[in-house]
Amino acid sequence: MNQDCLFCKIINNEIPSDRVYEDDQVIAFNDINPQAPFHVLIIPREHISTTNDLTSENANLLGHMILTAKNIAAENNLSDPGYRLIMNCNEQGGQTVYHIHLHILGGRQLRGLG
Amino acid sequence: MNQDCLFCKIINNEIPSDRVYEDDQVIAFNDINPQAPFHVLIIPREHISTTNDLTSENANLLGHMILTAKNIAAENNLSDPGYRLIMNCNEQGGQTVYHIHLHILGGRQLRGLG
Repeated sequence: MNQDCLFCKIINNEIPSDRVYEDDQVIAFNDINPQAPFHVLIIPREHISTTNDLTSENANLLGHMILTAKNIAAENNLSDPGYRLIMNCNEQGGQTVYHIHLHILGGRQLRGLG
Repeated sequence: MNQDCLFCKIINNEIPSDRVYEDDQVIAFNDINPQAPFHVLIIPREHISTTNDLTSENANLLGHMILTAKNIAAENNLSDPGYRLIMNCNEQGGQTVYHIHLHILGGRQLRGLG
């Protein structure tokens, strides 16, 4: 755990969140500032600041994050209409919390890529 | 290979592409209609139509796609300024080619999530 990290505090229940899924590797919760009718974040329990810090040891975790997103989308009836998965890195990518997170957006037509 | 799939034809060299990376699992090439100064697509050699079709057997492949994106970003001096990774699923997600692909966007400030 990183003591200064908002998402580590959410994992550790020091800050509340509206969790929609959790297991031993990840937690998922509703974004507090949703950009679409459905907007969930999936984060690893392990603190990893940015995608630049990923190594081959994280390959399975990354796969698990995407498969979890697919499952959460299915449970929310988004599979057929569709959804978007996004990971932002650093300032130009639009990253605001420095603990990697996978956005799942859906519930309306998603437009340009940013 | 899916005979009707544009990206399978690119993998099979039936349609040319500007490749920036390839290995036994994935190929990466410049998007022909870039949405940012840097816009590369990473696709698996295996035909998988949408993220809805992913299974746990694909976990390592998905991790490899993201790690490949991180490496390509680094080689193009995008690590520090930042970049965005996107996978779109079906119509509302904005998917246009039905062979999964990971967008890497960079080279300018990325804006909203779509």
